[in-house]
Amino acid sequence: MMKPLRDCSIAVIGLGLMGASLCMDLKEGQLCREVRGVARRTRTVLDAFFAGAVDLATNDLHTGILGADIVILATPVRTIIATLEEIGPRLWPGALVMDMGSTKGDICAAMAHLPETLQPVGGHPMCGKETAGFEAAECGLYRGATWVLSPLPRTSPDALALATELALAVGARPLVLEAQRHDRLVASISHLPYLVASALTAAVAEVGVDDPAVWEVAAGGFRDTSRVAASDTQMFLDILMTNRTAVLAQIEHFQQHLGALHNLLAAADEAALRALLADAQKARAVWTPRR
Amino acid sequence: MMKPLRDCSIAVIGLGLMGASLCMDLKEGQLCREVRGVARRTRTVLDAFFAGAVDLATNDLHTGILGADIVILATPVRTIIATLEEIGPRLWPGALVMDMGSTKGDICAAMAHLPETLQPVGGHPMCGKETAGFEAAECGLYRGATWVLSPLPRTSPDALALATELALAVGARPLVLEAQRHDRLVASISHLPYLVASALTAAVAEVGVDDPAVWEVAAGGFRDTSRVAASDTQMFLDILMTNRTAVLAQIEHFQQHLGALHNLLAAADEAALRALLADAQKARAVWTPRR
Repeated sequence: MMKPLRDCSIAVIGLGLMGASLCMDLKEGQLCREVRGVARRTRTVLDAFFAGAVDLATNDLHTGILGADIVILATPVRTIIATLEEIGPRLWPGALVMDMGSTKGDICAAMAHLPETLQPVGGHPMCGKETAGFEAAECGLYRGATWVLSPLPRTSPDALALATELALAVGARPLVLEAQRHDRLVASISHLPYLVASALTAAVAEVGVDDPAVWEVAAGGFRDTSRVAASDTQMFLDILMTNRTAVLAQIEHFQQHLGALHNLLAAADEAALRALLADAQKARAVWTPRR
Repeated sequence: MMKPLRDCSIAVIGLGLMGASLCMDLKEGQLCREVRGVARRTRTVLDAFFAGAVDLATNDLHTGILGADIVILATPVRTIIATLEEIGPRLWPGALVMDMGSTKGDICAAMAHLPETLQPVGGHPMCGKETAGFEAAECGLYRGATWVLSPLPRTSPDALALATELALAVGARPLVLEAQRHDRLVASISHLPYLVASALTAAVAEVGVDDPAVWEVAAGGFRDTSRVAASDTQMFLDILMTNRTAVLAQIEHFQQHLGALHNLLAAADEAALRALLADAQKARAVWTPRR
């Protein structure tokens, strides 16, 4: 049996956008017994403590996790993997180990090696922003967001129920997905858009070298299509390197679609071009963003 | 000499997002003597009139332009070109003929054939939205937006000054650019993003056929990167077909950048990948959207 959420001490490792926003929601709603925050930078530790985002803040990992019933890893993916190995042997028996990393395959594989006394559940709330860090954190970030949960074969139903309770408590919509399936889907709707936005920004920047007026005429279309290119580079490198196969397939898939538009325009085949663009228009107009 | 703006009767042809928003600003600010609106659909004529967006509304083009000192064409590009031919011989001598079309080369070429008594100035306010039509119109749409003005060799300084006065009066930032240069720049920051967003939407929609959960996990990254794919298809077909050469070059340019990212990821060349992504990150983070 797991403790109910309100009796839990929760340690959040990584106080960037995701981790700190979660701490704020937990504290604001008095959803658990205690919120402990771990950050690498002393400045973030102090900011989190004085903002009242946590009950206890430290840059010492081992102090941070002392006696925690739930540990939540909220750093870039490869840091999560390294941290799992480091903290595994030191965690309270029965503790729930969650993460908020952007890919799930490698993390869940690492979770499988945790001591058998622990209960791992992979997770990924779908609510990133291009602004990162503690300064970007906010109460209510998770409200209405889909929160993917990827249990392992060894995860107990009680542990998954507690992870679900936590996601619900901050207003998110839990969605249980197998790790590989999650990674395939986010390659398409998150990692591909990031690379497309980055390539677009690079292409426009090159035009801007010859004619800087391009930045004067750039407006809402460029602003939104390129927005995620401003995301944290290290976070996305971790994502790309831990989801290479699926991402490469999605880039190739995208290139086929763009190539088809290019060829129809080159051939001035207006009827066929209209058909493809109208299909995309309908698909995009029908989809309602969760947030 | 042109009349000052406040003494002008202004006819706006096309009461979609751009045209109707301009009418609202002109009326709200009492910036001119009279605002006449022309729309194809009777429903739009009635909506515009009863919303108080115009002093006179009609679906008869010839009635709409009667006695106008300034005529502003605010329809899709190829409709603008057809309308120029139709109204040219009927306009008041000395009238300023402007447009708000998304490409300038073909429109300015058509403007060159207007009767010599008229003063043509091509124009393009950079403030589209993916929502179109009269319902999407709003006061203040042009505030802070760059408004490209493309005078012809025959355009008098007085006529360009009056067009500039109009753009400034609604809060826009006039930017005088030669038509071909405008078209090259918008191919990069507007037409390419549209095609990229459309190809992305098509790629995700194809994934969604196999696994509809993709729409559940799609969040802010996909939402923004794909937003402009929901734009009016006819409007963009007109744009693409009147700016083919520049758009094709920009697609190819973009494909090279995306291909480079793909190849570095395939080679797991993390250092080189980091360098390209960090450059794009900096370029995008430095640029401040006008709106």
